[in-house]
Amino acid sequence: MAVRAGIVVTGTEVLTGRVSDRNGPWLAEELRRLGVDVGAVLVVGDRPEDLRNALRFLADEDVVLTTGGLGPTADDLTAQVVGEVQGRPSSVDPELERQIAGIVEGLMDGRGWRADPEATAAGVRKQALVPEGAIVLPPVGTAPGLVVPPAEERDGPVVVVLPGPPSELQGMWPAALAAEPVQRALADRSELRQETLRLWGTLESQLAATLRQHEFPALEVTTCLRDGELEIVTRYGSEAQPEYDRLVEAVRAAHGPQLFSTGPTVDDLVASAFADRGLTVATAESCTSGLLVARLTERAGSSAWVLGGVASYANSAKEALVGVPSEVLESCGAVSTEVAAALAEGARSRFGADVGVGITGIAGPGGGSPEKPVGTVHLCAVGPDGRQPRSVVLPGSRSAVRHRSVALAMHMLRQLLLGGPPA
Amino acid sequence: MAVRAGIVVTGTEVLTGRVSDRNGPWLAEELRRLGVDVGAVLVVGDRPEDLRNALRFLADEDVVLTTGGLGPTADDLTAQVVGEVQGRPSSVDPELERQIAGIVEGLMDGRGWRADPEATAAGVRKQALVPEGAIVLPPVGTAPGLVVPPAEERDGPVVVVLPGPPSELQGMWPAALAAEPVQRALADRSELRQETLRLWGTLESQLAATLRQHEFPALEVTTCLRDGELEIVTRYGSEAQPEYDRLVEAVRAAHGPQLFSTGPTVDDLVASAFADRGLTVATAESCTSGLLVARLTERAGSSAWVLGGVASYANSAKEALVGVPSEVLESCGAVSTEVAAALAEGARSRFGADVGVGITGIAGPGGGSPEKPVGTVHLCAVGPDGRQPRSVVLPGSRSAVRHRSVALAMHMLRQLLLGGPPA
Repeated sequence: MAVRAGIVVTGTEVLTGRVSDRNGPWLAEELRRLGVDVGAVLVVGDRPEDLRNALRFLADEDVVLTTGGLGPTADDLTAQVVGEVQGRPSSVDPELERQIAGIVEGLMDGRGWRADPEATAAGVRKQALVPEGAIVLPPVGTAPGLVVPPAEERDGPVVVVLPGPPSELQGMWPAALAAEPVQRALADRSELRQETLRLWGTLESQLAATLRQHEFPALEVTTCLRDGELEIVTRYGSEAQPEYDRLVEAVRAAHGPQLFSTGPTVDDLVASAFADRGLTVATAESCTSGLLVARLTERAGSSAWVLGGVASYANSAKEALVGVPSEVLESCGAVSTEVAAALAEGARSRFGADVGVGITGIAGPGGGSPEKPVGTVHLCAVGPDGRQPRSVVLPGSRSAVRHRSVALAMHMLRQLLLGGPPA
Repeated sequence: MAVRAGIVVTGTEVLTGRVSDRNGPWLAEELRRLGVDVGAVLVVGDRPEDLRNALRFLADEDVVLTTGGLGPTADDLTAQVVGEVQGRPSSVDPELERQIAGIVEGLMDGRGWRADPEATAAGVRKQALVPEGAIVLPPVGTAPGLVVPPAEERDGPVVVVLPGPPSELQGMWPAALAAEPVQRALADRSELRQETLRLWGTLESQLAATLRQHEFPALEVTTCLRDGELEIVTRYGSEAQPEYDRLVEAVRAAHGPQLFSTGPTVDDLVASAFADRGLTVATAESCTSGLLVARLTERAGSSAWVLGGVASYANSAKEALVGVPSEVLESCGAVSTEVAAALAEGARSRFGADVGVGITGIAGPGGGSPEKPVGTVHLCAVGPDGRQPRSVVLPGSRSAVRHRSVALAMHMLRQLLLGGPPA
């Protein structure tokens, strides 16, 4: 792991959590694939001194990437501060100024918004400021990126300045990588592998015990619990492949029934199973209200197996749209195994799908009772190979109950389609 | 802004983006409300030297909060490293050890999972390690938190060690705040206000021009674009209230028709409007497939106005569940203004709702054509006050198109219910 990188995410909106950062993780993953080790991600606000401090903190890295702070507003100051720290004063690049002006004009026309030409020009001029000797990365949106090596007489990392909007950053990434100073900085890298094991149905402490019985000195192993699923992610150099194979065997020996994947996510497995078997699915969701069908349709091409779903929030909708008998609703209550089964069967028959999933529960914070506390969720998956019911009481907030219910439903689908121990 | 804080988020799973951090933003917001200014959030992996460097970077802050790294696995090492940096060696706290053992046993029993007692004990012992002189914050999950002041002869911030799972961290926060060393560090704080203006339908560069025409030296203004919505968030001391009022007037004068809120989100406005007017809503979504109804039901109590929705992904579902006439599907195509209107009307009548919303479009990456490129989305909202259709071509990825369509639908609902310029 010869080459190290650091990432600086700028923007008070990220620091204060109004916007969650997607660039740091995306860049970290891209760098990992290139064999570059990311030591830290720093999130700082739009204050020049905080950005300067962050760049100083990363002065020993080989490459530093910054994201954000390239817009036309006065709080966007990344390019100038980076230029200053690298010893390269900024000035307006006239060719770039013309290019950005053309882009902004096109954007305004397309949306039919009216623009004040002077206002636009001031913003454009700001976005065309380039540190002396920096390489300009052509705009994907309106903001150009920069590759800023330290000035001649200085040491330090090459700094790659990227825009904040993820689509612009990702679109600009190939050009950033191709820039000569970046290529030079990355020249010494060695391959770094990353593999993931996924378990469903065991506690982190049990897994820790398994790992403690062995020695894996060349592996960097991290475990992480997410919506009830346990992920073991291991990073290692290619020479440690036999050691990683031993890790997989140790986990399989101790947690075979819980180990559902040595790579693909439960979403991958369920999508492939539907596609391979040529089956279709429909849902009827009460407490999760569309989250499951939204998740099933996240990937391109899902229209081949997802027919749709009903978010039957009101009891009247459970009857009218999914055909849950009113007697069942009255005698068992809307949150019951019987209604979950009727939702699954109703989704299946109303959409004409091969597989149906029903979910009903109390996400809270209100609506609980001693018999049916908040977090009570009944699920049912029915398909050509049988029916799988499941009832749980999930901890946590309204959002946690909704998302864990969806995760559980995904594992029930996996089990229904692919077999294996119950979800 | 006398008191400053820094946040260290630990965990390779966060650094590499497999898990997105929710704790940094949550803590930053809590601290802001307390008048504490957060300078930086550092995300580091599970390597002791990286955590040590992060703590050193924040050595000039008054308070440092760490999240994560308190689990039973060997990669969880925050407590020990913090103890070391603060000059307080760690040892096992026997009372805490008993307490954690009891919690773990209860958890395993509740889920019916089998535990290896020795393995469990080793994990518990690790979690009961406490730096000398630190204050223990009782576990909310299995991991205790810690308040670790610097050792007697040392300078530096008080470090608050919190667990990674957001529900545990949030549950422990009141106890952390109440600890005497934290109270002492926060004693000098002054009130810090934060206010938000929200605009829909203008470009960031136009807003930048407006802001440039005025002087607001005492305000920290940041602007941020999200799913087409422009947020202006301003932080200021209470003495700068008149200056903030001037900012609001300047924005209103230049962007009155676009300024839809001086505080509440579009979700807040739509939810209140439904509640106040006693109206109900139902949706029929094709390309967004449940995302809109899931968003409408995020908040507690939404069952009072959301009856449900249909994710009518397949054409057969559009006909069978929402009643879109097959002639319209054939003559206009599934992605058309006519089908959007039929979806809205169908949702309204099938669920018996006052308001119906229909969305149909091409989220991509496949399915586009020269006449109907990827990103083409037709929406319609119908209610007692009329009908609002809208057709757009949205840029970006499949996920971006889906989420922007939902944002647009929220603004159409706002406009339908509250009036104002078209979304």
